Amino acid sequence: MSASAAFRRERTIRFSDCDPAAIVFYPQYFVMFNALVEDWVDEGLGIGYRALVVDRRVGLPTVRLEADFTAVSRMGDRVALLLAVERLGTRSITLALRCEGADGGLRMAMRQVLVTTSLETHAAIDIPADLRAAIARTSGLA
Amino acid sequence: MSASAAFRRERTIRFSDCDPAAIVFYPQYFVMFNALVEDWVDEGLGIGYRALVVDRRVGLPTVRLEADFTAVSRMGDRVALLLAVERLGTRSITLALRCEGADGGLRMAMRQVLVTTSLETHAAIDIPADLRAAIARTSGLA
Amino acid sequence: MSASAAFRRERTIRFSDCDPAAIVFYPQYFVMFNALVEDWVDEGLGIGYRALVVDRRVGLPTVRLEADFTAVSRMGDRVALLLAVERLGTRSITLALRCEGADGGLRMAMRQVLVTTSLETHAAIDIPADLRAAIARTSGLA
Amino acid sequence: MSASAAFRRERTIRFSDCDPAAIVFYPQYFVMFNALVEDWVDEGLGIGYRALVVDRRVGLPTVRLEADFTAVSRMGDRVALLLAVERLGTRSITLALRCEGADGGLRMAMRQVLVTTSLETHAAIDIPADLRAAIARTSGLA
Repeated sequence: MSASAAFRRERTIRFSDCDPAAIVFYPQYFVMFNALVEDWVDEGLGIGYRALVVDRRVGLPTVRLEADFTAVSRMGDRVALLLAVERLGTRSITLALRCEGADGGLRMAMRQVLVTTSLETHAAIDIPADLRAAIARTSGLA
Repeated sequence: MSASAAFRRERTIRFSDCDPAAIVFYPQYFVMFNALVEDWVDEGLGIGYRALVVDRRVGLPTVRLEADFTAVSRMGDRVALLLAVERLGTRSITLALRCEGADGGLRMAMRQVLVTTSLETHAAIDIPADLRAAIARTSGLA
Repeated sequence: MSASAAFRRERTIRFSDCDPAAIVFYPQYFVMFNALVEDWVDEGLGIGYRALVVDRRVGLPTVRLEADFTAVSRMGDRVALLLAVERLGTRSITLALRCEGADGGLRMAMRQVLVTTSLETHAAIDIPADLRAAIARTSGLA
Repeated sequence: MSASAAFRRERTIRFSDCDPAAIVFYPQYFVMFNALVEDWVDEGLGIGYRALVVDRRVGLPTVRLEADFTAVSRMGDRVALLLAVERLGTRSITLALRCEGADGGLRMAMRQVLVTTSLETHAAIDIPADLRAAIARTSGLA
């Protein structure tokens, strides 16, 4: 992931993100990245996320993910969440996502494949043209 | 709650906050307010929340709450979360919390009583002096 | 709450229910009670919960709750969740809910007012006749 | 995963597991599997999960996972969660996990690598002897 290409947001690790071991409960990373994807669609791509999902009824479910957890994150840690597009398919988008500590050290990384679906049928559909164009424009992929 | 006294943070309602009715799943309001209390302790009071909980082993569990849900919040809504101190006891703090829409309309309000506890024993302890002083100073209560 | 009238389910406190203090993170009680209400509608009342919400598009949002947290619940605790109907209104149902430890000791109690709504409009509607009849029959209320 | 070897539990998909698309919000699968691992350690292996984590301070964090989401799960679905051990290392355990619908159709499958750690230091430790013996005995691995 080249730093220049990545969409980046910071976040504080919350009490509610942590488990009895006082570190992030790992499913919370996926909740954090889900919010990052929302912000990326809204602010990085300029496509309204809410309009996409609620009005246009386009879903972005995950069909595959691979994640490696390298170092723990603790309550109160300030972390950076980064997103880059690895591959732009006809109906799928492959994202590379990272969580880094304040020192840039890797906490967790994941590759996630999303597909665009109709929320009426849950069947895959082609990536909408405006979404595709915005991803192509911002990522250099086509 | 007078607007001038309240500690205030804004937040976007996330996909992950919402239920199959596409509105905030009500327990998520309590998760949002938990994060607001963290920010209040950190930024409003200048007492490190993480240091309080992790290093000093002081807990802030809820012993009572009353909540009224007035209007729904939907995915993508920009909301304001507000916190004011209603009462400062020896071992308890009573908070008035509100969630408002972008137009200032009330979504949900709650009164919450927290107690300070030892995280070793879960027994109530007196509010630490620095926390008490910071609350008294910022809220005008004593 | 008379034990004879209450709908009761047992549950183990999970790692994922607990916070860095190794006790139940209080919003999780509401998630547990939400599942209890689902089981009550399904099994206690014999009204399909999924059919009610998904097919008939009837919502059961919370409009008010009051909760008292009396004793902590820890990971691995076996707890009982109890539900009794306190009041049956035209468009609202008032529930008394309790969480008890294996020894019957009270952990947490709550009064919750639900309203029946249209999931199309989120507006309150009269309690559907079959739901009302089932509640009246099982609770002795009318 | 051979059906004979798998540890299996059933579960109903809850309202709180689902997202505004009315299907399981994918991080909830990991929460469900976390509970399955707890039940497996308790009931499948006969090692007390709570004693392991709370008293013996042994953690079971995830260091890697790969997940494929094949079909959606909807609110009210009755699903089976299955666990089999694929590999037993010195400090790591590789699990194969599946979620199946009532008809046996695959919803989601995951491979998860757990390591045993000290909850004091979060450093990896050898799998405790009793845990290793129980896994070896029940899985046929060594």
